[in-house]
Amino acid sequence: MPKPPPALPGMPVADIDTPALILDLDAFERNLARMAEAVRGTGVALRPHAKSHKCAEIARRQIALGAVGVCAQKVSEAEALVDDGVEDVLIANEVVGAAKLARLAALAKRARGSVCVENAAAVAPVLAAGHAGGIELEVLVEIDVGQHRCGIEPGEPAAALARVIGESPNLRFGGLQAYHGSAQHYRSVAERRAAIAAAAGMAHATKALIESRGIPCPKITGAGTGTFPFEIESGVYNEIQPGSYVFMDADYNRNQRDEGDSPRHPRFEQSLFVLTTVMSTPTADRAVVDAGLKAHSVDSGMPRVDGRTGIEFVKASDEHGVLAIERGVKGPVLGEKLKLIPGHCDPTVNLWEVIVCARAGVVEALWPVSARGAVW
Amino acid sequence: MPKPPPALPGMPVADIDTPALILDLDAFERNLARMAEAVRGTGVALRPHAKSHKCAEIARRQIALGAVGVCAQKVSEAEALVDDGVEDVLIANEVVGAAKLARLAALAKRARGSVCVENAAAVAPVLAAGHAGGIELEVLVEIDVGQHRCGIEPGEPAAALARVIGESPNLRFGGLQAYHGSAQHYRSVAERRAAIAAAAGMAHATKALIESRGIPCPKITGAGTGTFPFEIESGVYNEIQPGSYVFMDADYNRNQRDEGDSPRHPRFEQSLFVLTTVMSTPTADRAVVDAGLKAHSVDSGMPRVDGRTGIEFVKASDEHGVLAIERGVKGPVLGEKLKLIPGHCDPTVNLWEVIVCARAGVVEALWPVSARGAVW
Repeated sequence: MPKPPPALPGMPVADIDTPALILDLDAFERNLARMAEAVRGTGVALRPHAKSHKCAEIARRQIALGAVGVCAQKVSEAEALVDDGVEDVLIANEVVGAAKLARLAALAKRARGSVCVENAAAVAPVLAAGHAGGIELEVLVEIDVGQHRCGIEPGEPAAALARVIGESPNLRFGGLQAYHGSAQHYRSVAERRAAIAAAAGMAHATKALIESRGIPCPKITGAGTGTFPFEIESGVYNEIQPGSYVFMDADYNRNQRDEGDSPRHPRFEQSLFVLTTVMSTPTADRAVVDAGLKAHSVDSGMPRVDGRTGIEFVKASDEHGVLAIERGVKGPVLGEKLKLIPGHCDPTVNLWEVIVCARAGVVEALWPVSARGAVW
Repeated sequence: MPKPPPALPGMPVADIDTPALILDLDAFERNLARMAEAVRGTGVALRPHAKSHKCAEIARRQIALGAVGVCAQKVSEAEALVDDGVEDVLIANEVVGAAKLARLAALAKRARGSVCVENAAAVAPVLAAGHAGGIELEVLVEIDVGQHRCGIEPGEPAAALARVIGESPNLRFGGLQAYHGSAQHYRSVAERRAAIAAAAGMAHATKALIESRGIPCPKITGAGTGTFPFEIESGVYNEIQPGSYVFMDADYNRNQRDEGDSPRHPRFEQSLFVLTTVMSTPTADRAVVDAGLKAHSVDSGMPRVDGRTGIEFVKASDEHGVLAIERGVKGPVLGEKLKLIPGHCDPTVNLWEVIVCARAGVVEALWPVSARGAVW
């Protein structure tokens, strides 16, 4: 926890020292409820990705509302969450290297967990770690369903890898990791629907091939905030891994433009903001705020200024953000606090030690970002 | 300090768990020595900017080699450095808000320090904080010498503000903050030289105007790694604030292409790297590493792969980096460790709790990033 803290419970939001990462608890809780409703009765399990929030408090709330556990992306991230009371973590990623695999095996003794493999050469080290730890590890085969990042080719290559795992004494084949990451950010519903239809087809065919050889393939897991309704509808996926829906960001908000809003295809609200102070008003068309590259990640574009039309965040340097003010628009005044919608929530949250949680204008709690910086 | 630590002193670099932020101590020490040599005998003081490293150990080493103190960009950053033994900090930035100004006044009782002002409306709150703290605060006037971010107009507006400060009982006018941030990244030496000649002209004229009114203007400070030789040569600046030279990055390395190398215009070596492991080798033209957006900041472009021609880091997602391998080039193997040169060092360092320091292939020390996340 930073000293001095940027806020204390009971304090008005207007008094929070800036920049600070703030969470609108009402919007956040509605987002959690909407996702719980979207999976209810579908037979599809919800396993939210904790790489978005890295916060054990949020993971516990997701699980309390019906999630079966969470995903993590790194062993250290899973360690931090398990240390803080989370009991079921899928590492939805490959783990490479003897030191990390030993930590993975140690973790599997403390919590229910699984990990992905996408290469036959990687099986032996995982097996050795499980053996050394005296533990059976559950392993999913990651298949490339269109993102072209990690993942073995679906069909025969994946089926052959599943067999290697199934025949390994200290490993248990758990199914397929079939996440289409790039589809999350396709801008139209039609593009996202088509990408997931193709992904589901590949996953389905691979599962059929594996099972035709007498190897059960219980789980097909994947999906994110941008596509999960299509994975649910596919009839192929039986677990989804959305993460960003708890917060949303400027990038995901662009996705929602041509979407409806129904229980199965819910819209999510922006709940996460960077609170910032106007520190300079040099000209009528420019203001400078105290939140720069160390307050939000600009990899998916600049943040947006919440609730202020005609004021655009145009440039970020280390500790400053430059706002362009349209002609005729009244600019903010020196010392005024503004709410910024981060361009990309996941790497933005990772910059902060605490999330300042507020409701109706008052700070209610400070939640530690348990796995901040846990990237190894 | 993260648990488990990514490395321990005495360990071979090859055994560091990844991703990790690593520092080549030999290159780093040569960079510090080169900068000390560049200012020696010039009458210009060196006050390195600590926003680049946020590390008290590095600040103390800079001071041991002759620096008069350091710059910080935020009150919390200065607090963390002072807590860790640094005794002279210029906050080279405006501080807005009563809570922050009270902390600034408290800090000024523990260490020598100063702060910037660029607006007459901001003088009264600074004065009130100094008065409440029972302390005289040294204040510099920030002038806009071409960056068009913060800073009052040079000449008459700045001189009028200097007079307001000089006439305020709890404030001491210390001189001019005249930093040209954007010039640091102009690609040619000629452009950088011309920008600083113009900046120095504005600073000189403003100082002359202020002093013509009987107000001493002792300090003109500014400059960064990209331009400091020109500020030194100007005869106008008597203090420089370079930060990135200790580490360098892909962006600053692009600057050095048309530069010579002499004691007064030294070249700096890349000393900072993100060590990463190849976690997937799906095709001959692609590999995936375990360092993504949470391991390095991509605001100034992607990292570069050190010492490997024909292999380019082309895409970063949260926890992955995608490498493109040229046809005919042998790609890295699964599990191989590579060194990445960050695109931008300052926001990259801010992602990490510790800097793993190595010499001749062996880990020598772990330095905490004392002011990590200290952005408010």
